[in-house]
Amino acid sequence: MSDERQVQQVLARYVRATDARDGSAMSALFADDARVEIFYNRAGVPEPVAELVGAAAIGEATASMMAPHPPRGWSHHTTHDHIIEVDGDEATLDAQFVVFNTVGDERPADGWPAGASGAQGTITPIESGYYRPRMRRVDGSWRIVHHTIVLDQPMAFPGA
Amino acid sequence: MSDERQVQQVLARYVRATDARDGSAMSALFADDARVEIFYNRAGVPEPVAELVGAAAIGEATASMMAPHPPRGWSHHTTHDHIIEVDGDEATLDAQFVVFNTVGDERPADGWPAGASGAQGTITPIESGYYRPRMRRVDGSWRIVHHTIVLDQPMAFPGA
Amino acid sequence: MSDERQVQQVLARYVRATDARDGSAMSALFADDARVEIFYNRAGVPEPVAELVGAAAIGEATASMMAPHPPRGWSHHTTHDHIIEVDGDEATLDAQFVVFNTVGDERPADGWPAGASGAQGTITPIESGYYRPRMRRVDGSWRIVHHTIVLDQPMAFPGA
Repeated sequence: MSDERQVQQVLARYVRATDARDGSAMSALFADDARVEIFYNRAGVPEPVAELVGAAAIGEATASMMAPHPPRGWSHHTTHDHIIEVDGDEATLDAQFVVFNTVGDERPADGWPAGASGAQGTITPIESGYYRPRMRRVDGSWRIVHHTIVLDQPMAFPGA
Repeated sequence: MSDERQVQQVLARYVRATDARDGSAMSALFADDARVEIFYNRAGVPEPVAELVGAAAIGEATASMMAPHPPRGWSHHTTHDHIIEVDGDEATLDAQFVVFNTVGDERPADGWPAGASGAQGTITPIESGYYRPRMRRVDGSWRIVHHTIVLDQPMAFPGA
Repeated sequence: MSDERQVQQVLARYVRATDARDGSAMSALFADDARVEIFYNRAGVPEPVAELVGAAAIGEATASMMAPHPPRGWSHHTTHDHIIEVDGDEATLDAQFVVFNTVGDERPADGWPAGASGAQGTITPIESGYYRPRMRRVDGSWRIVHHTIVLDQPMAFPGA
């Protein structure tokens, strides 16, 4: 498998871990001393929102700081139009992302209404921006050493 | 072209065939005795929804069981964040998918209203989940031998 | 990097230039005498909408003819399910695209309302279709020589 595809698949596993709220799968993608920086892209001037340091803390945040899915709910963090540059054991990746939340309808006790056909639920794009991870090859596998998330939307934190 | 990209392009042709409701293009992507299994991912516990057996039946379902597009309508089955593993002449692919339906507005007889600018229509995400095909290389080209579709939303069937 | 990935990354840079309304970045992706043809896919019968000739005019259109982003707004032209064929120094690419517009909410002077959590804003899919560029390798780098955009939605032009 090409270096570029290996790098791209690290990001594919990152979004799987995010959607599954799987902290240990997430930690495994990062170097021990990795850093995640989140920015809000205020009219082109990135404004710091949050920072996480260390693979353990990054995994912990995935498992405990992200909102759990509601009943019949799931999310898809999707990434697009990757620009990947590999230089030896170092790599950069720039991707667009769009996050979709979905909630399936609950089947009425007496069945779906007349005329209902196909998937029953709602899908809502809730977040977008750019992922810009830097990765390093260590012992033959690529790990994220620094991950920059640039959000298009401002973030509200409960109680803040 | 790398094996991984060949495998990915089979899925790209699969979504083209789906959106075009093109049964023969769809059949050609599957091994003769291929199987499609559709599950609803009920809170993480996949529940069987439907099963199709054989390339001919799979093509037939594409052409006749999917709802036709409405006037000025089209769909885009889009796939994201592929995780591909190739082992000789066998391959697995795991992709997220989101389906968008679109319906273009009808141009009024006296032209678009004042101030209208750009694309005139609506685009709605209606379905999402994971595609997990297994493929096999036969006579140099990759075919789907087993396709698993995991839907996030429950399905309603007319008259069921 | 494989030829196919190089071709795909030209399209990735194309959507970056579009979203940034960056005319010079856009021009640099096209051959000097390149042509862009835009069609509305009226029920499967493509109908010409607009045509641009020359890298300079294509860049100029990106910078001045596209609507500027509103305050706190941005767009993501995203592409999906690429089918790429490279033949020597010629290449074709067929991709689905979906365009999302996003507008972030403005933080109230007295802070986000109680209960607000996560990204604050709206994301709307506004345009979709197919990109079908043809590229040529010139002096080692791929340029778009002819770009076909097939829109699912009819276009309205101000004052037309």
